[in-house]
Amino acid sequence: MTLPVTLIAAKRDGKRQSDGDIRELIEGFMKNEVADYQMSAWLMAARLNGLDRSETLALTNAMLHSGKVLNLKTVQAPRIDKHSTGGVGDKISLCLAPLVACCGVRVPMISGRGLGHTGGTLDKLEAIPKYNTALTAKAFEAVLRKVGASIIGQTSEIAPADRRIYALRDVTGTVESIPLITASILSKKLAEGIDGLVFDVKVGSGAFMTNLKDARVLAKSLVSVSKRSGKSAVALLTDMDVPLGKMIGNSLETEEAIEILKGRGPADSRELTIRLGIEMVQLGKAARSPAEARSKLERALDDGTALQRFVEMVRAHGGDPRCIEKTSLLPHTAHRIPVLAARAGWVARCEPKALAWVALELGAGRLRAEQSVDHAVGIELAVQWGEHVEHNQPLAFLHVRKPGDANRFGERVRAAFGLARSRPKARKLVLSVVV
Amino acid sequence: MTLPVTLIAAKRDGKRQSDGDIRELIEGFMKNEVADYQMSAWLMAARLNGLDRSETLALTNAMLHSGKVLNLKTVQAPRIDKHSTGGVGDKISLCLAPLVACCGVRVPMISGRGLGHTGGTLDKLEAIPKYNTALTAKAFEAVLRKVGASIIGQTSEIAPADRRIYALRDVTGTVESIPLITASILSKKLAEGIDGLVFDVKVGSGAFMTNLKDARVLAKSLVSVSKRSGKSAVALLTDMDVPLGKMIGNSLETEEAIEILKGRGPADSRELTIRLGIEMVQLGKAARSPAEARSKLERALDDGTALQRFVEMVRAHGGDPRCIEKTSLLPHTAHRIPVLAARAGWVARCEPKALAWVALELGAGRLRAEQSVDHAVGIELAVQWGEHVEHNQPLAFLHVRKPGDANRFGERVRAAFGLARSRPKARKLVLSVVV
Repeated sequence: MTLPVTLIAAKRDGKRQSDGDIRELIEGFMKNEVADYQMSAWLMAARLNGLDRSETLALTNAMLHSGKVLNLKTVQAPRIDKHSTGGVGDKISLCLAPLVACCGVRVPMISGRGLGHTGGTLDKLEAIPKYNTALTAKAFEAVLRKVGASIIGQTSEIAPADRRIYALRDVTGTVESIPLITASILSKKLAEGIDGLVFDVKVGSGAFMTNLKDARVLAKSLVSVSKRSGKSAVALLTDMDVPLGKMIGNSLETEEAIEILKGRGPADSRELTIRLGIEMVQLGKAARSPAEARSKLERALDDGTALQRFVEMVRAHGGDPRCIEKTSLLPHTAHRIPVLAARAGWVARCEPKALAWVALELGAGRLRAEQSVDHAVGIELAVQWGEHVEHNQPLAFLHVRKPGDANRFGERVRAAFGLARSRPKARKLVLSVVV
Repeated sequence: MTLPVTLIAAKRDGKRQSDGDIRELIEGFMKNEVADYQMSAWLMAARLNGLDRSETLALTNAMLHSGKVLNLKTVQAPRIDKHSTGGVGDKISLCLAPLVACCGVRVPMISGRGLGHTGGTLDKLEAIPKYNTALTAKAFEAVLRKVGASIIGQTSEIAPADRRIYALRDVTGTVESIPLITASILSKKLAEGIDGLVFDVKVGSGAFMTNLKDARVLAKSLVSVSKRSGKSAVALLTDMDVPLGKMIGNSLETEEAIEILKGRGPADSRELTIRLGIEMVQLGKAARSPAEARSKLERALDDGTALQRFVEMVRAHGGDPRCIEKTSLLPHTAHRIPVLAARAGWVARCEPKALAWVALELGAGRLRAEQSVDHAVGIELAVQWGEHVEHNQPLAFLHVRKPGDANRFGERVRAAFGLARSRPKARKLVLSVVV
């Protein structure tokens, strides 16, 4: 095999590395022939000198094949998944998967947990008592055949190289790299046995990509490498300068997703569910036009079909379906304490990261992967961006274990809102589409 | 303490790091709070984004203070050392240290072993039976007081951070970096308790720096950081496009150094000894002019004073001084086999690296630090660059354990020589001076 130092030196010198070189590097790493300190040096060289599309594809493939790749042959096509790059209040996966399954598309979704300011679908699902996110590959396939949608957690069999490499990146300053992010996301997603993939690339102060330009670069990388891997793909660039919907926190977000499945819920999270659904239905060729896709999706939300599909999915995962009908059965705190507006005004700023950190500190999130979360705590917005609030009326409610927490965090929540004298101009939910 | 990942990210983003940041990094590394994989990521970021002079000085100091720093208070000043960046046939330290000690300068020299194509002073000294290179700091100081010169090996107490960092650099593609090289050299040299330092920066195909431009950058870095550390310093940039002197191999090189101390030896190695000596004597203010320094040095070589000083140094280190008078007592091979010229001509090319690799493969060198060397084997040039050789006359003699080795390597030695029809233009020994 090529000496590890030779593979590192090539990237250090900005050379293009062959598929074989990159495969050797990753295989060597998994066999401990390439040491952690060598991988981290290569990652820094890749972070600084970049990887082109072919290298990114090779890295994706090498990481993908470090573990099990599902084929889901027994699950009828089309099999389409959605991936979000992470935001605040993003509970869309929970309602989107059963909804799209109602339109003739199978949704095999392997999700992650929250880390830092971004939440994770698994944590939200686990707010449902007894919901089992750790199905075997066989059970996952069975749920997909029966229900059409299944959301599980990443197993240790899926892309183990990504897990080891991500742990290194996290502590070596090599997280922020479009090619490394692309390979990390896709090595897990391509293991799902899917035919196509819709990306929700979040843009704004609450997202990893804070501006449209960077987000577009990431979206193009994700779509391009997916297509080179033989998958159909499309990316929506969506607004994350404000939280999505009204709920931030695990149980609260699950509740909002259920509201959407009941044909209600905040307009923005319902609309984003539909927009992403249209893309998934179209990739799955389950509608002849976007308009037809929208009409199918809206009908499934409004006539209870999607809700029923969610009930079936939860039941298939061992979860308690009663809390879907009656969301008060979901974990809740004893205290729901308002944070009042210091004056009247139009909400012209609502900082997602500031709110997410409060939610995290209340216990809804984690700073390290091994920490557990409190499903019940969180923040419920009383007003969303663009709405009007009166003096001494609630901006938000804090769902806390101890009333003292409301005092501790109230001022930070208040400061996350900016109130203007006039109504702000409407904002766009979907900023751009990358195909 | 600052999180390691924050320190790495700053260098990744090309920021200037404070003395405190760099000290935290190195101290954290020595306390295992900064992991190997984090140090290697930082090293790659430093290799690609560079370190300025202040950062290089801070790194040097942090590495220096990771271990013991001698003060040599009991050794009369001036204390001046010489450091060579490594070449082929460079045995100058052996004769230079006792020579300069004859001119009223103390020479506390901590040397290294050979690795790859470059030889090491310690390996050469150890060709002298019983010479002990592992003196305690106290014994080193005593020899310096008594003899004025002592050459010992690096102990584990001197700059342990450099040893650990170098081991990482070696396997992560981060060796070739002027600031990292500077800090590595100086962290060891500044531990010697010296007042000044002369650098012999080798330039050419047999050196680490193959062109004058790169060599000058390294020389400037070494001199500048030394001065900022309060040491007087000067660098000579010297020719390494041809081997230095006639001998390549440990015992053979020691023999050549003894020849120089006897007022004989090849003109180039004698002259370089004097040139470096002039710089050391001047830094030590032990002569009023270069001419006076030269005159003192030449006299000490020609009247036996320097040789006598070498005898005293060897005796103080427990070595057998009889082999200095009678160099046949040094380790020798049973076979000295000529490599003959295929035709007559002027030596217009004599490749140091090609010859060094043959010497290494004969056993004179090592590829890994833990390997031992054969002191007896090596190559003796019969003709040097610019000299004339007749057809079927020796170009060199191979000092080998088995006659078969001469057959194995003869052709490679022959190919290292280029013969021209006309006498090549004279070459310069000292290409430039950096103060």
